[in-house]
Amino acid sequence: MSDINPVLAYVDTHIDEALGRLLDLLRIKSISTDPAFAKDCAACAEWHARDLQSIGFEASARKTPGHPIVVGHDRSAPGYSVLFYGHYDVQPVDPLELWTHDPFEPVVETRSDGTKIIRGRGASDDKGQLMTFVEACRAFKAVHGKLPIPVSVLLEGEEESGGASLPMFLAANAAELKADIGLICDTSMWDPRTPAITTMLRGLCGEEVFITGPDRDLHSGFYGSAAANPNHVLARILADLRDADGRIAIPGFYDGVPELPPVLRRQWEALNFDASAFLGAVGLSIPAGEKGRSALEMVWSRPTCEINGMGGGYQGEGFKTVIPSKASAKISFRLVFDQDPHVVRKAFRAFVKERVPADCTVEFKEHGSGKAIRFDIGAPAFEKTRRALTEEWGAEAAYVGGGGSIPVNHELKSALGMDVILAGFALEDDRIHSPNEKYDLRSFHKGIRSWVRVLDALSR
Amino acid sequence: MSDINPVLAYVDTHIDEALGRLLDLLRIKSISTDPAFAKDCAACAEWHARDLQSIGFEASARKTPGHPIVVGHDRSAPGYSVLFYGHYDVQPVDPLELWTHDPFEPVVETRSDGTKIIRGRGASDDKGQLMTFVEACRAFKAVHGKLPIPVSVLLEGEEESGGASLPMFLAANAAELKADIGLICDTSMWDPRTPAITTMLRGLCGEEVFITGPDRDLHSGFYGSAAANPNHVLARILADLRDADGRIAIPGFYDGVPELPPVLRRQWEALNFDASAFLGAVGLSIPAGEKGRSALEMVWSRPTCEINGMGGGYQGEGFKTVIPSKASAKISFRLVFDQDPHVVRKAFRAFVKERVPADCTVEFKEHGSGKAIRFDIGAPAFEKTRRALTEEWGAEAAYVGGGGSIPVNHELKSALGMDVILAGFALEDDRIHSPNEKYDLRSFHKGIRSWVRVLDALSR
Repeated sequence: MSDINPVLAYVDTHIDEALGRLLDLLRIKSISTDPAFAKDCAACAEWHARDLQSIGFEASARKTPGHPIVVGHDRSAPGYSVLFYGHYDVQPVDPLELWTHDPFEPVVETRSDGTKIIRGRGASDDKGQLMTFVEACRAFKAVHGKLPIPVSVLLEGEEESGGASLPMFLAANAAELKADIGLICDTSMWDPRTPAITTMLRGLCGEEVFITGPDRDLHSGFYGSAAANPNHVLARILADLRDADGRIAIPGFYDGVPELPPVLRRQWEALNFDASAFLGAVGLSIPAGEKGRSALEMVWSRPTCEINGMGGGYQGEGFKTVIPSKASAKISFRLVFDQDPHVVRKAFRAFVKERVPADCTVEFKEHGSGKAIRFDIGAPAFEKTRRALTEEWGAEAAYVGGGGSIPVNHELKSALGMDVILAGFALEDDRIHSPNEKYDLRSFHKGIRSWVRVLDALSR
Repeated sequence: MSDINPVLAYVDTHIDEALGRLLDLLRIKSISTDPAFAKDCAACAEWHARDLQSIGFEASARKTPGHPIVVGHDRSAPGYSVLFYGHYDVQPVDPLELWTHDPFEPVVETRSDGTKIIRGRGASDDKGQLMTFVEACRAFKAVHGKLPIPVSVLLEGEEESGGASLPMFLAANAAELKADIGLICDTSMWDPRTPAITTMLRGLCGEEVFITGPDRDLHSGFYGSAAANPNHVLARILADLRDADGRIAIPGFYDGVPELPPVLRRQWEALNFDASAFLGAVGLSIPAGEKGRSALEMVWSRPTCEINGMGGGYQGEGFKTVIPSKASAKISFRLVFDQDPHVVRKAFRAFVKERVPADCTVEFKEHGSGKAIRFDIGAPAFEKTRRALTEEWGAEAAYVGGGGSIPVNHELKSALGMDVILAGFALEDDRIHSPNEKYDLRSFHKGIRSWVRVLDALSR
């Protein structure tokens, strides 16, 4: 136990140095899904290893079949131990032309109301968020020379690319990494005033499908109608994925998807989620999914099927009357409760094959999978964390569901038997995965202060 | 009237020079649909003007709102006058990686059987074909100092891009360009031994559709299901274009599409078209279009709807869980008999708008249109040409239908009141519009000889 007021004061007086370190980190082009940036990912891992060493962690970037994984330990203090997880990789930046500036030349902008935002790829997801925890540790070390509890840090570089390295790494290093609980900072506030702990996360199943028709591109004037057009074949398959009521039409897809428990339904209704504001913020107004489901259900507790990308034929300037040889699509499913990603993948592939003409061929490529997960909020650490967040933000922290998928949760649970506390300071308008991603300086600053309080609370 | 044997002999002894000129022409990157190549198109027009001048034509490249149009006249001879039409522009070359060599560095390859092919973009469509006519004129001038009949040449640069310049140009220069009949060399042989005159051509209606959903790319984990996904909206529209029987489902689309006249149906049946060989040549086996229609009907006398290109969301390496803001598709319709492209366009746009959610937007871009056309083969010039081709190839030339659309035919008919004889020497395996386009040296050589015979026949 140690007095945290000087630590909080240190955070306030040294926020500019913390911001400077984050801006350095944001300049590293750690796009994990594109092999062209493998060197940048390695450089980013090295950056973190050095940074953790600089505050007394025993840290290094470990080799994996994919991008390196950074591991750091400072277990000099006794007590309740934590493993903090974050990811240093970022999403691709296209369409580049929609960025107001270079995504890897971060800038601090000042709003008309005087508040500041940090703009750049990864500012929120996840470099800005993970650094809130690292800076909290730095402040403790600077003020008291030690941390209040044993802390390990695990930073991966394949979160955005459904990478396969982490599960193997966790299994191979279970004894080293095991802690009393996991901490992750990769989620959002409930709203700009209300902090949140995410207690449910959907799973993921990513698939890429390639349809091949003719063995070359054909002139549609000569072969039109007679030759199978992969664009038509693919469009039919993609259209069939959802029925007229917005339900996903793959047989057995909803197996293991129960209705929401009444208690949770009531709690969510009490949040008075404003669906029209949620959609209005992105220029829409009509919930597009399953009829009869609330928007909050759709994004928290219902499974989804989204075409993340599709393409076939001539997409350049002008026009080309071609029947393409190939067409392809990237499709992802968000899974809930007990849906099994492997069962879903199998059912999807059967659904597609059924719709491919006998003289065309189809290939599939797997892009990551993870089961949905729920945490037991009865564990004392959850309530301690909730109180610490409530103190920092001056508003009751909420237990919420989560739309995104963070496969690591499942891996930590299955490989290390650990529950995870998901507390993050992102905001709905952070535009993560989109052009002009940002992170509020307030999220960064109060996020650091929040972890100072959480680390202290967990030591009591 | 003049003895053609020395002219044919001249063609044989000077074929290498003719080939050299064609290779020069093929090096010019005259891709009309991509503005980046406008300079190359202008250079190509100048090349033709100089070449025509070199054989005594009064020729020049004329400015248009788009790419230049080359016009040349040699009307020193009296008699039955012809206007030869060709196009010097070519299709884009992507996917470039599928070419065995630079598409604009043409090569002459020798097959195992000793026959030669000219490989490069435009080798067949239409530079190689149009040069067969120009070289025939060159031979006449070299041997007899004059042509047997009055000849005008019209070479446009927007045939592959549905360009709008030609109709205006024809209307503005009708008196100058009018001739007794039009000649076009932009079609195929019936088979490698049998020459053909195309007497029916389908029309064209090209459309590009853009769907916009959210005002930015979204994270599918946060907005999945709830936010309209333009990929899903577009896939549904594209799938709906054809019903389960392969019929095009746009209301009124088949207005003005009669059944084939029995006489023509019998003649086509007599051709013993080998549908499995036709599809087998491109790696397919099952006719994909309207149930109950022969493949020959599909490609000659039935209208089509093909998705030439579609795209939306992340199509790069790896995976990105995004809901894209936009998706788009390029769609072309081949029209027959009395279908009106403007009516089809209107019906298509209504069909699409009906399927766009109220909170999404749709935009359209027009890409060319032309009505289908049939020629009166009762005109003596048709039979004279058919006999000339029969003599050159030693096989009865056939009157055939045509799958492609050559809008100029309609323009020549409407603007100048001219019928057109479509005689070409391309082969089904020329891969026009595809990577590794080629033209048989035999097509080029005997094509030149064919025009020598046709020009002579038309002078008798």
